[in-house]
Amino acid sequence: MVERLTGRERQQALQSIAGWREVEGRDAIARSFVFTDFNEAFGFMTRVALVAEKADHHPEWRNVYKTVEVVLTTHDAGGVTRRDIDLAAAMNAIAGQFGVA
Amino acid sequence: MVERLTGRERQQALQSIAGWREVEGRDAIARSFVFTDFNEAFGFMTRVALVAEKADHHPEWRNVYKTVEVVLTTHDAGGVTRRDIDLAAAMNAIAGQFGVA
Repeated sequence: MVERLTGRERQQALQSIAGWREVEGRDAIARSFVFTDFNEAFGFMTRVALVAEKADHHPEWRNVYKTVEVVLTTHDAGGVTRRDIDLAAAMNAIAGQFGVA
Repeated sequence: MVERLTGRERQQALQSIAGWREVEGRDAIARSFVFTDFNEAFGFMTRVALVAEKADHHPEWRNVYKTVEVVLTTHDAGGVTRRDIDLAAAMNAIAGQFGVA
């Protein structure tokens, strides 16, 4: 069972994932990614889907053409855990390969 | 330029796509699909993405684990057109192949 991140550990973890913010009114983190077009946005989603499925930890996400809005939380733990930070970091790395910093 | 569907034509078109409803406060149609798991939900999305890209007509959609919530509208036309009906019908057909009626 993975535990919710709190206090200093949480702040340090959040600082490690550029572009992610805490969601108001909910123990979750969010980021929007903007790509060049649908092809790139869905290509990003496809690569992330494989990572998420392998980790058995899945995003809540919304796609409108070239944008992908993501929310991450760990339902079993009732909040943000290391698993969310890891998936967020993986998303940032994949987005970076599409030229999205 | 494809035109907004109105009147009798619109009602007939909507009746042809099971499970789709009109969105309140917006000229758009929506449907939620519930699959067995993330693998099937994202498999559905991947097949739909190829259809959408080929038609150059893309959904607004949200995925949370095994659910996919879709909204369709034609931005250029300011509302629901034949292109939305066609994409909705294609989504229903693909979902059907996953056993989702």
